[in-house]
Amino acid sequence: MSKPAIGFIGLGIMGKPMARNLMKAGYALTVHNRSRGAVEELVRDGAQDGRSPRGVAERSEIIITMLPDSPDVQQVVMAPGGVLEGIKPKSVLVDMSTISPIVTQDIARAVEAKDAEMLDAPVSGGEKGAVEATLSIMIGGRDDVVDRVRPIFEALGKNIVHIGGHGAGQVTKACNQIVVALTIQAVSEALALAAKAGVDAAKVRQALLGGFAQSRILDAHGQRMLDRNFKPGFKVRLHQKDLNIALSTAKTLAVPLPATAVVQEAFTALRGLGRGDLDHSALVTLIEDLAKVEVR
Amino acid sequence: MSKPAIGFIGLGIMGKPMARNLMKAGYALTVHNRSRGAVEELVRDGAQDGRSPRGVAERSEIIITMLPDSPDVQQVVMAPGGVLEGIKPKSVLVDMSTISPIVTQDIARAVEAKDAEMLDAPVSGGEKGAVEATLSIMIGGRDDVVDRVRPIFEALGKNIVHIGGHGAGQVTKACNQIVVALTIQAVSEALALAAKAGVDAAKVRQALLGGFAQSRILDAHGQRMLDRNFKPGFKVRLHQKDLNIALSTAKTLAVPLPATAVVQEAFTALRGLGRGDLDHSALVTLIEDLAKVEVR
Repeated sequence: MSKPAIGFIGLGIMGKPMARNLMKAGYALTVHNRSRGAVEELVRDGAQDGRSPRGVAERSEIIITMLPDSPDVQQVVMAPGGVLEGIKPKSVLVDMSTISPIVTQDIARAVEAKDAEMLDAPVSGGEKGAVEATLSIMIGGRDDVVDRVRPIFEALGKNIVHIGGHGAGQVTKACNQIVVALTIQAVSEALALAAKAGVDAAKVRQALLGGFAQSRILDAHGQRMLDRNFKPGFKVRLHQKDLNIALSTAKTLAVPLPATAVVQEAFTALRGLGRGDLDHSALVTLIEDLAKVEVR
Repeated sequence: MSKPAIGFIGLGIMGKPMARNLMKAGYALTVHNRSRGAVEELVRDGAQDGRSPRGVAERSEIIITMLPDSPDVQQVVMAPGGVLEGIKPKSVLVDMSTISPIVTQDIARAVEAKDAEMLDAPVSGGEKGAVEATLSIMIGGRDDVVDRVRPIFEALGKNIVHIGGHGAGQVTKACNQIVVALTIQAVSEALALAAKAGVDAAKVRQALLGGFAQSRILDAHGQRMLDRNFKPGFKVRLHQKDLNIALSTAKTLAVPLPATAVVQEAFTALRGLGRGDLDHSALVTLIEDLAKVEVR
C-alpha cells in the first residue's frame, strides 16, 4: 500500500517538528504556514509549498492542522481560500490543535458535507514530545477513519487513544488540562503553606509522594517549585487558553467548574504580573507573592 | 532494654486497632476513653484502666493521644484531671490526632514546662492502615525524642517520616489533605464535564492516567466515581474538619488558599445535602447534581 500524500498546516513550535517526523517516516508533505520562514525551511528539505490552505487540501489525502486556537482553525478551514474549498471526497482533515470541542463538531459537519472525513486529535507532551515523536494523542471521530490515519499517528506519538466521536479528543484534552491545572494549584497551596509555617517544603513533597497525595505533578512540578525553575515547559498563557476552552465548553453544557475557574483567575493574575511566558508551575509564585514567602 | 510503659487515650475507629497493635508488639498499655465500652474491651485483653488522662499519664513513659480534633486534645491534656497533671519528667506525649499545628505548638510548650517531651505524629492510611499497621506517620519534634519513640511508630505504621520541629507533622498532614481534596475536585470537574459532553468517562480516566494528569486519586477515586462506590474510605465530614485546620492555620499565617476554600465550601454543601458520611470522592456528586449528569 502506498503512503497517502499528507498536507500540514501550522508549522509552529509543535507543528514543525511533527512535520519533520512525518517526512522522516517517508511521507510526501505539502505544507503551509502564515509566516514563510518555516515553509521555506521544510521546502529545502523536500516538502511542497501548498501556498494556501486550499492549495494544501487540493494536493493531500490527509490534511493535518496544528494551530493556536479555535478561531485559527475555523479561519484555515472555513474562510475563502481555506481547506473546505480544496478538500477532496474521502480525504481526512486531522485537527491536532487544542480547540473547542463544540467548534470541532461544527467543522466536522462542514467537512462531512463535502463527503470528506474529520478527526480531532489534540496532543499532550509539549515540544519535547513533538520532537521525539512521543506525543500522547487523544482522538475523536469514526473508527474506520482512525484506522486509516493510525500509521500517521504512530509516526508522531506513543500513547494513542481513540476516545469516541467528533469532539471526544478535544473533551479529553480539556479534562487533562483541568486536572493538570488544579493539581499544580494543589501543590502550590500546600507547599506555600508549609514554607510559611517554617517547614521544609522538600521534605513535605517527599512525604506526600509516598501516599494518596502522589501525582506526576507533585513529583515534577513540585521539584520545579523547589528548584525555582520556571523555564517552560508549558507556558502559563497556553494553559490559560486551554482552560478558556474547558470553561466555555462547560458553560455551553451547563457544567459548573468552580475550582477550574479559580485557577483560570490565577493564570490571569500571572499574566497581569508579566509571567505569562513562564512555566505553568509558576502558579506557586502568585501565592508566594501574596503570602510573602518562597517555597525552597 | 525493657519496653516503655505506654498510655493510650482515644480508642475510636483509629485508636482501638492501634492500641491492639501495640499490645500485640508486647507493650504494657494503660488506656482511657470517654465512652467505657472500648476501655472494658481492651482491659479484658490485658490493658490497665487509667480512669482519667491524668491516671494514664501517671502510669506511662509514652502517652499517645488519638482524638477527633484540636479542642479534644486541648481538653485531654490541659483540663483538670488531664495529662499535664500526671505527666512525669522525661515522659513523652505523642499526639497522633490530626489537629492544628498552632495548637500543637501551644501544647508542646506546656508539656516542656513540665520537663516532659512532645511529638506531633498525625497519620494517614485510614482504618485499614490502623488495623494492618501500615499507617503513614508524619512527625514533628526533636530528633532524640523521635529516636526514642521510633520502635513504637514501627509497630503502628510503615512510612515514618520526621519532617521538622513541633507542629511540622501537623503542617505536613494539612498539606496532604489540601492536595488530596483538590485532586479529587480536579478529577470530579474533569469527569463530570466529560460525562455531560457525552464522552466515555472511563476512557478519559484511562487516557489521563497515561500522562501528566496521573495521580493516585485519579486512579483510585476516579474508579470509585465510575463504580458509584461512595462507601467510606474517608468521610466527607472528616476531610472537611481537616481542611478547616488547613484553612485556619493558613489564615493565622496569612497564606491565601483560594482553591482549598472552594473545595471546603463543596464539602459544606455535601454535608448540607446529608452526604457527610459518604466517602470524600462523593465530591463528584455535587457537580453531577448541578449539571444533571452522572459519571459512569
